[in-house]
Amino acid sequence: MTMESSDLYPVARLAAVQEATAAAGLDALLLTPGPDLRYVTGYEALPLERLTCLVLPAAGDAFLMVPRLELPAAEHSPASRLGIEFVPWDETDDPYAAVGARLGGVARVGLADRMWAMQSLRFREAIPGAEQVLAGSVLRGLRMRKSPAEVAALREAGAAIDSVHAQVPGFLRAGRTEREVGRDIADAIIEAGHSTVDFVIVGSGPNGASPHHELSDRVIHEGEPVVVDIGGQMPSGYCSDSTRVYSVGEPPADFVKYYDVLQRAQEAACAAVRPGVSCESIDAVAREVIAAEGYGEHFIHRTGHGIGLETHEEPYIVAGNAEPLAPGFAFSVEPGIYLRGAHGARIEDIVICTEEGGERVNHRPRGLVIV
Amino acid sequence: MTMESSDLYPVARLAAVQEATAAAGLDALLLTPGPDLRYVTGYEALPLERLTCLVLPAAGDAFLMVPRLELPAAEHSPASRLGIEFVPWDETDDPYAAVGARLGGVARVGLADRMWAMQSLRFREAIPGAEQVLAGSVLRGLRMRKSPAEVAALREAGAAIDSVHAQVPGFLRAGRTEREVGRDIADAIIEAGHSTVDFVIVGSGPNGASPHHELSDRVIHEGEPVVVDIGGQMPSGYCSDSTRVYSVGEPPADFVKYYDVLQRAQEAACAAVRPGVSCESIDAVAREVIAAEGYGEHFIHRTGHGIGLETHEEPYIVAGNAEPLAPGFAFSVEPGIYLRGAHGARIEDIVICTEEGGERVNHRPRGLVIV
Repeated sequence: MTMESSDLYPVARLAAVQEATAAAGLDALLLTPGPDLRYVTGYEALPLERLTCLVLPAAGDAFLMVPRLELPAAEHSPASRLGIEFVPWDETDDPYAAVGARLGGVARVGLADRMWAMQSLRFREAIPGAEQVLAGSVLRGLRMRKSPAEVAALREAGAAIDSVHAQVPGFLRAGRTEREVGRDIADAIIEAGHSTVDFVIVGSGPNGASPHHELSDRVIHEGEPVVVDIGGQMPSGYCSDSTRVYSVGEPPADFVKYYDVLQRAQEAACAAVRPGVSCESIDAVAREVIAAEGYGEHFIHRTGHGIGLETHEEPYIVAGNAEPLAPGFAFSVEPGIYLRGAHGARIEDIVICTEEGGERVNHRPRGLVIV
Repeated sequence: MTMESSDLYPVARLAAVQEATAAAGLDALLLTPGPDLRYVTGYEALPLERLTCLVLPAAGDAFLMVPRLELPAAEHSPASRLGIEFVPWDETDDPYAAVGARLGGVARVGLADRMWAMQSLRFREAIPGAEQVLAGSVLRGLRMRKSPAEVAALREAGAAIDSVHAQVPGFLRAGRTEREVGRDIADAIIEAGHSTVDFVIVGSGPNGASPHHELSDRVIHEGEPVVVDIGGQMPSGYCSDSTRVYSVGEPPADFVKYYDVLQRAQEAACAAVRPGVSCESIDAVAREVIAAEGYGEHFIHRTGHGIGLETHEEPYIVAGNAEPLAPGFAFSVEPGIYLRGAHGARIEDIVICTEEGGERVNHRPRGLVIV
């Protein structure tokens, strides 16, 4: 991934993040394995109990604390291009104390948003008196605005998951269980080029009314709608996420009625995307269409979430989020209608805010697919 | 998994944890999705940005904060057997404030060891003045001592990964890449009954000298040793982890020499397991055999790690850990010898401390397998 790395994870990003850290009034960022570390360095470090941590002072040289046995992995990662010192530590060293000693007295440090408590509490002791805030306060502004290379990576992820949805009608039939269908989908997600399967939701009949239902041994019956919400992470680090609804044979009449409402809501919300429009207003557009038809109480979640190195990241498309959209913002538009005990539906595309409007990276037909 | 749940995740555990919380002088545990939450409730909640949290006061009734759209999933999980209140929250609510208000004034709270900073810092604001410590300080003593049902689950995981190692000679041959072999192994891990593939290390030739090397496009050559370290999580939640070394054709003479040393070290460390022996002394047994033959500097990591709901958990088999082994402790014994630039080897079994000694759950031959 050397070719990709230089575009997706440019070396210049380190200096930009350092500048943003200073501007935010933080003395340093402490980035443990996860999306924040990968964004800044390109290094996909193992999220294990031994401390790996990029220490990025607002002024001065960054360094990477790394367990000695992971030093070869770090040296073979894109982080090796950054020209920063790698500081290996041995099994009986205290790497937290070592970070504290190197940093010296600091007043405010930013922790990777996903840093584990077992690490943040150790840093609290090792860097006494330093206020801990989220690194996200510095990184969110950068991470939300996807670069052209990041947009290209999201398009690639979108095409990959579209190719899986194209196969779903072949997997679905009455008599199979959700789990059997899910296994086929998981295989197809990997075949399509993802490096991991992040989630496979196959919600048949009443299970479709549980938005985060995953898989069960429930047998799918004729005449049942099935919500299929799937995604994974590509080798680039960027994620896919798309939902379509299928029906095994003719669906119930009440379902057909609200599915049409849902499709109009999703279209309207996608069409509303353009720079300057607030996140909450995109949510409101979808919600108004659904509420106007009397299904408001059945749309029980926000309209979407940002996507990039994480399936769920900022910006969230939700009431109360006044953040204005800007070119490069990437997020899902996925309203849903759920009739508990009966069935449910959700339609989801990833949309990227462009200079002129919105570009969807998912292109499978959005109408109900009868198989 | 209802049958399994009642044994693996007994309802009585909640009260035991509550008692231990009080005994440790904590006012409450706050358990977000991850192994701590699963241990206490059996609930495998999604680790997402919306807060799911078991709030377990030292005195009084526990409750589970849960995003409304995940309420059906929580209700279908083993947590529903616990007789605790589920408190759903809606997209525009502040669930952290709600937890703070319900808890009232508390002095010390225990956070799930893997709680994300984006959650722990929100709790710091929502429960002002409360000291945050690790829930692990309460849970580690319980989690380290595996119950008979947990031991059975680890045996099942061991048998599953053994069946994968039995297939590895069929996957390995000169001319294939590590990644191709790794793909076959990953498929076999799932076929063997795991629900996830947690890691697949195929370290051929010089890559075998990087303990946490995963997979690369390196082509495997005749005469090269290959380190294969693989594991996954079973539907029970319990993990497998086992390493064997294969050689594609006759290995180099220097390799054969130290492989024999390594095998004796691993045997000696396994044989030393019994109640009352300290974790660090198991490490020392392996290290002494290796050092006596002049390879001490090439054994660059601890001897092992605990295993259960996490692949790496307490107890760590490492210098400085004086914790005495007790019946039910489960951990890896995996010494290694690494000649950087040339090749490396590691042999790993999961061992359970019994009343009389140690029981291994991995039974594949430990001698070098020439394929």
